[in-house]
Amino acid sequence: MSEPMRGVRINSDRLWQSIMEMARIGATAFGGVERLALTDLDKEARDLFIRWASEAGCTVTVDAMGNIFAHRAGLDDRRPPVMTGSHLDTQPKGGKFDGAYGVMAGLEVVRTLNDVGYQTAAPIEIAVWTNEEGSRFAPCLIGSGVFAGVVALDEGLACSDGDGKTIGEELERIGYTGSREPSGHPVAAYIAAHIEQGPMLEAEAITIGVVSGVLGIRWYEVVITGQASHAGPTPMLLRRDALVGAARLVQEVHSIGLAYLPDACATAGEIHASPNSRNVIPGQVALTVDLRHSDARQLGRMEGDLRHAVTSIARDMKLHIALSNVMSLPSASFARECIDVIREEADGLGLTHRDIISGAGQDAAHLALVAPAAMIFIPCEGGISHNEMENASPFDAAAGCDVLLRTLVRLADRKASRRKRPHPF
Amino acid sequence: MSEPMRGVRINSDRLWQSIMEMARIGATAFGGVERLALTDLDKEARDLFIRWASEAGCTVTVDAMGNIFAHRAGLDDRRPPVMTGSHLDTQPKGGKFDGAYGVMAGLEVVRTLNDVGYQTAAPIEIAVWTNEEGSRFAPCLIGSGVFAGVVALDEGLACSDGDGKTIGEELERIGYTGSREPSGHPVAAYIAAHIEQGPMLEAEAITIGVVSGVLGIRWYEVVITGQASHAGPTPMLLRRDALVGAARLVQEVHSIGLAYLPDACATAGEIHASPNSRNVIPGQVALTVDLRHSDARQLGRMEGDLRHAVTSIARDMKLHIALSNVMSLPSASFARECIDVIREEADGLGLTHRDIISGAGQDAAHLALVAPAAMIFIPCEGGISHNEMENASPFDAAAGCDVLLRTLVRLADRKASRRKRPHPF
Repeated sequence: MSEPMRGVRINSDRLWQSIMEMARIGATAFGGVERLALTDLDKEARDLFIRWASEAGCTVTVDAMGNIFAHRAGLDDRRPPVMTGSHLDTQPKGGKFDGAYGVMAGLEVVRTLNDVGYQTAAPIEIAVWTNEEGSRFAPCLIGSGVFAGVVALDEGLACSDGDGKTIGEELERIGYTGSREPSGHPVAAYIAAHIEQGPMLEAEAITIGVVSGVLGIRWYEVVITGQASHAGPTPMLLRRDALVGAARLVQEVHSIGLAYLPDACATAGEIHASPNSRNVIPGQVALTVDLRHSDARQLGRMEGDLRHAVTSIARDMKLHIALSNVMSLPSASFARECIDVIREEADGLGLTHRDIISGAGQDAAHLALVAPAAMIFIPCEGGISHNEMENASPFDAAAGCDVLLRTLVRLADRKASRRKRPHPF
Repeated sequence: MSEPMRGVRINSDRLWQSIMEMARIGATAFGGVERLALTDLDKEARDLFIRWASEAGCTVTVDAMGNIFAHRAGLDDRRPPVMTGSHLDTQPKGGKFDGAYGVMAGLEVVRTLNDVGYQTAAPIEIAVWTNEEGSRFAPCLIGSGVFAGVVALDEGLACSDGDGKTIGEELERIGYTGSREPSGHPVAAYIAAHIEQGPMLEAEAITIGVVSGVLGIRWYEVVITGQASHAGPTPMLLRRDALVGAARLVQEVHSIGLAYLPDACATAGEIHASPNSRNVIPGQVALTVDLRHSDARQLGRMEGDLRHAVTSIARDMKLHIALSNVMSLPSASFARECIDVIREEADGLGLTHRDIISGAGQDAAHLALVAPAAMIFIPCEGGISHNEMENASPFDAAAGCDVLLRTLVRLADRKASRRKRPHPF
């Protein structure tokens, strides 16, 4: 840490006020936020961020995918920026912190640097990624996916919502089709702050999660078809009960999660039975499966186990089972050079910390494809997220932001690297 | 069979026409019938039946529970009647045959006896029971339950629908609160004709099911509560996944059915998960369980196994599970004296037959508490019932009615019995 920055702390009250003010846009009755991507409310949140970033002296650009970049000049402004950021869209009944915390923490870093009049060697940029949640336009993480070159711009703009409106049309409508090319923008490092969205930090009373990677995610939809018939007169041995097949599959999914510990998750989250009547044997059941692992090969093995389970259940129980993979997000291993800085700065601030892997999908996993990346997690109350009850403490929010400040400054003040990094473009 | 009745057959066309004409009241777009208990459509069906029964020379009375009795005098009209019948209410999207077939078959027996001018020794009565289906007013089989003395009249009249309207109010509204006492009406024997509502007769190409009993039925509602949380960041070993618990219970329910074969059924028909989102661990699951057995003690053991499974799953998986028994219908073993007559008459008519147990609940199970009772089943297409697609063949409908005719006549022509039967009143 350079001498002028030693002892500097972010302004905890200002950070908290900004999070709360942003949360008024789309505030729900139960203390949450409903601000779906590219709605009028999302535009209002984007406008507010741009006003605040401009007031803080940043130059704001928008790319053709609607991603926003607030640029704070460095001493050598030709150097690639050290980037932070997150998203301002929310789940349908989301919370105040998911996404907004990372954006506001980035803004607070800039404001704090302004307060002390410190300019980093490389520039710092705050990114706001379009359609992170994927609630309105599937899939999620689209803006960062286009930025990282794993999703084509045309493909990203063509994603449509339930009413058939596309991201491209809605960007035009709210005035956020920017002129900047959405990929090929060099980034020196990417460090994002986020609430954990899980229970581990709180359970262990730890303030800072040093995120070393992101689980890869694969989503599947399963439709199990048997034969509906009256629950009384249909003998047990003549039944083709789709719900009994689904029950076996739900248990197999859970077993797959347990078989690949510690870095695996497997969940059947959604189930619909038909005709769903108490005295009728279920003829059809639809369910979803969510598999996650930090290692792509292990995730592939988990999928193999799922396919094997489906085949066995269909054969044993005379059911027809259709399995389709509806989304895949890659796993990410974050960069040692970033992880180490975060860990050292948390230590330097006297904050408890532990290494952690993100089970949730993250824009940072896309950024890790084009730059050294890592993340800083803070605890969230009860591990609850994607929920109006989502909450975090002002102390933890400030602590995460202080770690972000010091990490960004250290990375931006590194000597300019001549090392070549692999680049997908 | 008395000499004048030898060779007499019911009028197959007239029977079929009557079923089809009755099915026009509440006819649905897909060939079914929607005629919920005590609606204007139910009144219309009741009025039509009373007109036809009166035209056939019957004396019609209605009891305080709205049950209708069409009485054809016997040579000794003081003798208790031999009774047949069923119901005219239907499921929300029901079929043309469930219930209506039994009532129209009784009417066709009376019309046939009129055609040949034959008077039985004891009177014959056709009963139409109120609210058999239980779709509008829970529970089902209420009219026959009051008649048999297992449900108090006040209790029966107080059953209410989703809008809070009671059976008593709706009987008044449609003019079917009768003056007759609804219990204490002696019955010499009760024989009802019905479609099987299951696949066995059709699968074995058999025309007549000689029904020897009815499975007892117990319905349960189960609410499993765990902890909803994000499917990614929540480690497998910290989860309390209500759907994994429900999956184990669904499999246990199926195993309970298999463990008490041949006369057992066990079904989980309805399931609702919450929040039912693909990337959230289900926090709560509600499901229904339907257990059936021909033997009350075995049914009790099945319930014991269910309670044991619930306790084990709750303990093993740290879930809270609430189990409530929401309905119980007793099993019935029908009377040998009735079963034997049905079997002999099916034989005498050269019809294929087999003994069968009704998996569906039946008014006859209530009647069996106050009189020797049995039932005649005919096949239904694909075993499908409680469905607009419900279908039966004119040949089978006539065959069942011929067996009914001969069985009722033989029972009504028996020498008056002085044997005392147990009576619950």
